[in-house]
Amino acid sequence: MSNGDIFVGEVIGTAILILFGAGVCAAVTLRYSKARASGWVVIAFGWGFGVLAGAYTAAPLSGGQLNPAVTIGIAVDTGKWGKVWVYLLGQIVGAMLGAVLAYLVYLAQFQANVQNEDTPEGPDEEPVPTLGIFSTVPEIRHPVANLITEIIATMALVLPILAFGLTKGLGESGTTVLIVSLLVVGIGLSLGGPTGYAINPARDLGPRIVHAFLPIPNKGTSDWGYAWIPVVGPLIGGALAGLVYNAAF
Amino acid sequence: MSNGDIFVGEVIGTAILILFGAGVCAAVTLRYSKARASGWVVIAFGWGFGVLAGAYTAAPLSGGQLNPAVTIGIAVDTGKWGKVWVYLLGQIVGAMLGAVLAYLVYLAQFQANVQNEDTPEGPDEEPVPTLGIFSTVPEIRHPVANLITEIIATMALVLPILAFGLTKGLGESGTTVLIVSLLVVGIGLSLGGPTGYAINPARDLGPRIVHAFLPIPNKGTSDWGYAWIPVVGPLIGGALAGLVYNAAF
Amino acid sequence: MSNGDIFVGEVIGTAILILFGAGVCAAVTLRYSKARASGWVVIAFGWGFGVLAGAYTAAPLSGGQLNPAVTIGIAVDTGKWGKVWVYLLGQIVGAMLGAVLAYLVYLAQFQANVQNEDTPEGPDEEPVPTLGIFSTVPEIRHPVANLITEIIATMALVLPILAFGLTKGLGESGTTVLIVSLLVVGIGLSLGGPTGYAINPARDLGPRIVHAFLPIPNKGTSDWGYAWIPVVGPLIGGALAGLVYNAAF
Amino acid sequence: MSNGDIFVGEVIGTAILILFGAGVCAAVTLRYSKARASGWVVIAFGWGFGVLAGAYTAAPLSGGQLNPAVTIGIAVDTGKWGKVWVYLLGQIVGAMLGAVLAYLVYLAQFQANVQNEDTPEGPDEEPVPTLGIFSTVPEIRHPVANLITEIIATMALVLPILAFGLTKGLGESGTTVLIVSLLVVGIGLSLGGPTGYAINPARDLGPRIVHAFLPIPNKGTSDWGYAWIPVVGPLIGGALAGLVYNAAF
Repeated sequence: MSNGDIFVGEVIGTAILILFGAGVCAAVTLRYSKARASGWVVIAFGWGFGVLAGAYTAAPLSGGQLNPAVTIGIAVDTGKWGKVWVYLLGQIVGAMLGAVLAYLVYLAQFQANVQNEDTPEGPDEEPVPTLGIFSTVPEIRHPVANLITEIIATMALVLPILAFGLTKGLGESGTTVLIVSLLVVGIGLSLGGPTGYAINPARDLGPRIVHAFLPIPNKGTSDWGYAWIPVVGPLIGGALAGLVYNAAF
Repeated sequence: MSNGDIFVGEVIGTAILILFGAGVCAAVTLRYSKARASGWVVIAFGWGFGVLAGAYTAAPLSGGQLNPAVTIGIAVDTGKWGKVWVYLLGQIVGAMLGAVLAYLVYLAQFQANVQNEDTPEGPDEEPVPTLGIFSTVPEIRHPVANLITEIIATMALVLPILAFGLTKGLGESGTTVLIVSLLVVGIGLSLGGPTGYAINPARDLGPRIVHAFLPIPNKGTSDWGYAWIPVVGPLIGGALAGLVYNAAF
Repeated sequence: MSNGDIFVGEVIGTAILILFGAGVCAAVTLRYSKARASGWVVIAFGWGFGVLAGAYTAAPLSGGQLNPAVTIGIAVDTGKWGKVWVYLLGQIVGAMLGAVLAYLVYLAQFQANVQNEDTPEGPDEEPVPTLGIFSTVPEIRHPVANLITEIIATMALVLPILAFGLTKGLGESGTTVLIVSLLVVGIGLSLGGPTGYAINPARDLGPRIVHAFLPIPNKGTSDWGYAWIPVVGPLIGGALAGLVYNAAF
Repeated sequence: MSNGDIFVGEVIGTAILILFGAGVCAAVTLRYSKARASGWVVIAFGWGFGVLAGAYTAAPLSGGQLNPAVTIGIAVDTGKWGKVWVYLLGQIVGAMLGAVLAYLVYLAQFQANVQNEDTPEGPDEEPVPTLGIFSTVPEIRHPVANLITEIIATMALVLPILAFGLTKGLGESGTTVLIVSLLVVGIGLSLGGPTGYAINPARDLGPRIVHAFLPIPNKGTSDWGYAWIPVVGPLIGGALAGLVYNAAF
């Protein structure tokens, strides 16, 4: 694969992933959304099928990694680091693009995120914080525990992907892409409770940058104090998965 | 494929799609339905598995496109426009047929959509508006934002389908049909909040015509002022996806 | 396939189907069940994955039809009626066996279906009617509408199965069995609201017979006045699907 | 497969299974989890996708059995008992490891399981019992009924797996692993209501041992009086499935 194909594939694939992922968080969070308050199962399946859409689209161009933790895990496993920077660049650009697209899909809802409207919910409903639509926010702020959560959850993503690759090759088989997407659903359902499961540095950092710049009413903090955890944790988890895979398989 | 096979396949497939889709909206909306108020996850999976049923049934005859936006996207990509009119005709006829079938399945429920019955919910519950069972209704009426939502959501459908086709061929593989149907579930979960995700001109226009003529008690408006958005938006989105695909892949 | 293999396969497969299907209705209905009141999505997926389990188990022996409406639809399509009676016999026996197994799984819950216990819900909670765990109960009792619902919903099951068979062969491919099971989930979500979607005469009649004989406290009526609709409706729907398939494909 | 590969594969695969399974129970149960009270559908899909992740990871090393009931069922069917002890040892070690990992993922939530905090839920909310996160707890304590439930539910797992193996080979095909995981979702939805569906001795015993030793505030009883049922029931169910399979297929 050429550097251009890899870059374009990762941009498009990661943009689709974040469009779905940020989209489903907007769907569940914002007022005047048909999916408002529809629960955690909607969040988890929305993100998982975002992986399905993004990875299957990107597969012919770049293999559809869409996640620096996956890219690092594969590099640690194979020892091939030459094209890692192309993947990472495409992933972070794609994540920012996807966040903008999700913002545009929910444009009217974001613009209606104001107080004291004359609405069915009554004039006193407060605006909702919007960062959780773009990036992860922990339920309990505890850097060590949050980091452990992200490390283990990312290992639970990358180790199966490496093991799948042993027999199938990521991105070549539709069934493999489907299984990876349901794996991401499972991680969300099972391991997403404490931190909201970044498990992907680009997925968290790219949209957080976009959130800082978008003109959203009452958008609230972009919480840069927490931003390093969903970057560092998944990178450690991906690298550890590569090491475990090399040792055990 | 002959014009006759294409027409029959698209009629049957789109009818099944709308039977499931309008059916699940009736199931969740109408009184005296076992699925009443069962939430957005039911809506999204009901529509997605409608794609599964319709596309897999139609695949041997027409390939199972079932959506003018998909047909336009493929035509923009391939430059072959000769049979587009057959697909579109079958899709709009099928969508109208499917809406009638869904009405028949929920016949007793539609007939019970009256006020002041002696019901468990009490005599004062009001009839429910029925247009949302047949066609899309935006949460916030904002033509520009609604159009953007439909354009992006349709691109998120058609671009992956075109990319799948590169390696698999739409409709030939059961796994591909399954993945497309889960992709539609994902679009519903993630991008359906603002407008109810038409992402298919036939899916919206055909049932809206049927709604205007059916003798449903208290059916409410057919809202023709909004009807152009779920037609124009998806057509633009499908064409844009064809252009992006040609440029990037 | 020998008559013995067909019979044993259909007994085991249909028993597993009803074990899961009656089981999920018990899970959602009965007191002291962890899944109580968990909603329509649980019902629909429980039945669908019952099809998955039963059909995949039965496939090597009988092809896993598990439903007289499917058997009739195939016979109408192929004109081969010689072994139909073996399939039907196995299906009704299997359905009765499955209903007994589901009763045994929820034995303690059925025994606790009494009034005036000293329970967390308070001593005054009434016993729940149990027929809906075994057989279908319409929301609105309207023979013509109920019959139409069952006919159309069964066509939506059998027509795709016949069309799948054109390219894949039912039961030979794991993906086909998976798709049929998700199709059943979709029928439940979309078309199950009015009557509870029998779409299978054995699924309704077998467990109704068992319900009439089981020693369940406060079990309520077995409602034999309604019993013909979920038998006749699906048989008509299956035969119509065979005719439509022959004409269109 | 060498004994070392089997042991390592079963340890890693069962650890991933329990990480997801105990994880989703923690997600739904504990305070300060984003998935709190998100319902039975989340539990069932979380466990099922844990099977997907664990079995697919372990497949290249050990075939991914992850369950003594499956191992016993295969041994009864094939008559090959020589490596059974390696599978069982790996499964119990893996289950304990997975329980520790799930504890670490929810570390901050477990530490916050105290009374009289100044929390949004108010200072009076009581700590939640934690055993149900690690092991199964019956809704009605009735040894005979609980045993019957576990026996039948385990047969509903092992018999389809044996029948799948007839045509496909467990673990070799991605589709087969996917179907087994959805089968486990179905068992949870349909048959999990009375006892919480252990259907796997290692899944229940390993985490129960870990629960007894972990320093969790207000963790409550480890309920050793019940511990034999989710061990003995599944072993009987697995063996019966092997016998039925030998007789019928």
